Amino acid sequence: MTRKKVRPPAERRSGCPIAGTLDLLGDKWTLLVVRDLLFYGKRRFNELQASPEGVPTNILTDRLRRLEEAGLVRRSRYQARPPRYEYLLTPMGSELISVLREIIAWGKRYLPGIGSPPPGAFLAPPRTS
Amino acid sequence: MTRKKVRPPAERRSGCPIAGTLDLLGDKWTLLVVRDLLFYGKRRFNELQASPEGVPTNILTDRLRRLEEAGLVRRSRYQARPPRYEYLLTPMGSELISVLREIIAWGKRYLPGIGSPPPGAFLAPPRTS
Repeated sequence: MTRKKVRPPAERRSGCPIAGTLDLLGDKWTLLVVRDLLFYGKRRFNELQASPEGVPTNILTDRLRRLEEAGLVRRSRYQARPPRYEYLLTPMGSELISVLREIIAWGKRYLPGIGSPPPGAFLAPPRTS
Repeated sequence: MTRKKVRPPAERRSGCPIAGTLDLLGDKWTLLVVRDLLFYGKRRFNELQASPEGVPTNILTDRLRRLEEAGLVRRSRYQARPPRYEYLLTPMGSELISVLREIIAWGKRYLPGIGSPPPGAFLAPPRTS
């Protein structure tokens, strides 16, 4: 399987840390994958796929690959035949918890119709590889 | 000019505050516009357009409109003929500072080749409408 390379630093849009972070995480899905790994204790593709937002399979595959290539997620094979993998946050990925906490606080304060996270959240401790 | 409506809460992907925030801000450009309004004291379209990331004009127009419709930005006319507008963060927009600060800290720690914000940042105090 050919894997696309992560954009090297020289190709970043600018030296700004916000722009650099958005190069990796600036879309509607990536931080939801991080959320599920961090707060819900999910590890496997089908668990991540079952989230209420209904992430399309091809997007989930792409985002997990990009997170792995960028060093936020480590992939580990848990079954040999057929090969199956689980996904674990690295410290780099886990430390997004501070960003996610501020997003949660902002969203709960300002977005109408937004309440607390769905049931099941925060029950599992954050797992890192 | 016809303006698209902001997605009402009933159409959100889920009740999760992270997903709701990403519905508004989950792309590569919107938080850079907020950054420029918040940290660089920019107010006018041509100032925002001059940022180092080179935001395309149509994207900047779209993001300012969406930020205004969502209540994060207030548009104010500063010239009548031809009409020209400046853009000011509301308290809802300004309070993204906590999210941006965590993104800056994470980006500076983990992204190779990322340093401090470009010169000029943080010189202007945050402006709110």
